[in-house]
Amino acid sequence: MNKKFDVFGIFIIAFVTAIGGGTLRDILIGNTPVSWMQHTMSIYLIGVITSLSIIFRNKLNYLKKSLFLFDTIGLGIFTITGVEAGIQAGLLPIISIALGTMTGCFGGVIRDILCTEIPVVFRKEIYATASIAGGVCFMTLHTLTIPITIIYVSTIALIIVIRLIVVKYKISLPYFDIQNKE
Amino acid sequence: MNKKFDVFGIFIIAFVTAIGGGTLRDILIGNTPVSWMQHTMSIYLIGVITSLSIIFRNKLNYLKKSLFLFDTIGLGIFTITGVEAGIQAGLLPIISIALGTMTGCFGGVIRDILCTEIPVVFRKEIYATASIAGGVCFMTLHTLTIPITIIYVSTIALIIVIRLIVVKYKISLPYFDIQNKE
Amino acid sequence: MNKKFDVFGIFIIAFVTAIGGGTLRDILIGNTPVSWMQHTMSIYLIGVITSLSIIFRNKLNYLKKSLFLFDTIGLGIFTITGVEAGIQAGLLPIISIALGTMTGCFGGVIRDILCTEIPVVFRKEIYATASIAGGVCFMTLHTLTIPITIIYVSTIALIIVIRLIVVKYKISLPYFDIQNKE
Repeated sequence: MNKKFDVFGIFIIAFVTAIGGGTLRDILIGNTPVSWMQHTMSIYLIGVITSLSIIFRNKLNYLKKSLFLFDTIGLGIFTITGVEAGIQAGLLPIISIALGTMTGCFGGVIRDILCTEIPVVFRKEIYATASIAGGVCFMTLHTLTIPITIIYVSTIALIIVIRLIVVKYKISLPYFDIQNKE
Repeated sequence: MNKKFDVFGIFIIAFVTAIGGGTLRDILIGNTPVSWMQHTMSIYLIGVITSLSIIFRNKLNYLKKSLFLFDTIGLGIFTITGVEAGIQAGLLPIISIALGTMTGCFGGVIRDILCTEIPVVFRKEIYATASIAGGVCFMTLHTLTIPITIIYVSTIALIIVIRLIVVKYKISLPYFDIQNKE
Repeated sequence: MNKKFDVFGIFIIAFVTAIGGGTLRDILIGNTPVSWMQHTMSIYLIGVITSLSIIFRNKLNYLKKSLFLFDTIGLGIFTITGVEAGIQAGLLPIISIALGTMTGCFGGVIRDILCTEIPVVFRKEIYATASIAGGVCFMTLHTLTIPITIIYVSTIALIIVIRLIVVKYKISLPYFDIQNKE
């Protein structure tokens, strides 16, 4: 099954995937105008990366491992910005962790909805679980007043390790069939 | 047709269905951070109910009637919180009623979108219509300065009665076929 | 392929298509309660137009050309309100243009998502591109401090001309196949 998109659609989907999680985070806590409207650097960066991906799309397979790593580092960074935003807004630890996970995963959820697929994060990979673990790690170290650089590195490292283990040993969460209501 | 979800996905869908309407309400009127970030009680409650539903999923059929009742009471409560939020924000009656209906129904709409189904509220059941009727009832009694407890009970009772009648006599709104644009 | 909706669903989809873009714009820049909650005129107008469309649905084919024109004028107006909102919020030109495009196109995106279709704006027609061109035109003339009426007329005229040319010569952006991840 293939889906056809024109160039414009591909750029939009790339942007939405990249900024969707942070946008949801900002909207939920009332941090408006949302971040990407104030830091255009990220927009140019996404534009360049998407352009390169389209130009070199036939060679992306060779980069699969690097892409997995970049994607996971991105998940870590997004998770961190979400947890930090929650802490700054004075929210409870469990809410801050949820905010981190949403920041990390929601972009992919919107991407899948736009492609009319059931979000992959609800079905496969322990993507969100790695983000939650990272958020718990961040909150715990933050409570212990560990220096922030160490917290950043530990959180991202933990997320990378979890994803590597999950992919290597093909671990998945237990499944359930949801019967269609019709 | 069945859809597969892992445990994490099921929890997310349960949460989104429960808090989606209230979250939309809060975002639209600018009440941020949104309610569930400030009242974590509801989150724990949803977690417990979802866990019980997963554990006893084979026995849910026996509870169908109780579930229908709980669902309808929930619709009533959500409708009321939406209408009240509209009144407090100084919005017009028609907008407050719309806000009540969105609070009551939007969670189910997101749930269906996440499962890539056309939202059931647009096709079947007079779910939203019951919510609108409840909202009109609430606004009318509110204008007459009836005591708030009586307004609450009347609104929820009306919604329950409408849904019972609709289900019993299999009433549905007139249908239209929308032709695909392609 | 046809999709069935009840009357309520059709009204909701009409409303969401009409107000979705403006609502997203307001939420992203923190302009709450969102516009349609404060200007109910637009709601009544959408209600009347939708009612007329349902009543005369068999005759809509004869109006195809007028509808195309109205739709394009609407795209122009929505684009303008988005760009202006961005300028008023003190956002950068590129962000204001993006806000204009979102205001113009997002309603249609939500409509398609609710119908579980891949948003047409990502696949066909140069709908969004016309909106972007209109936004760039608006920003440029605005920077040159041209009188606002001339800016409005030029922006809408440009969007109409682009769409007419695109439809007449069947121009489309280059396509790409996105392979399903499964």
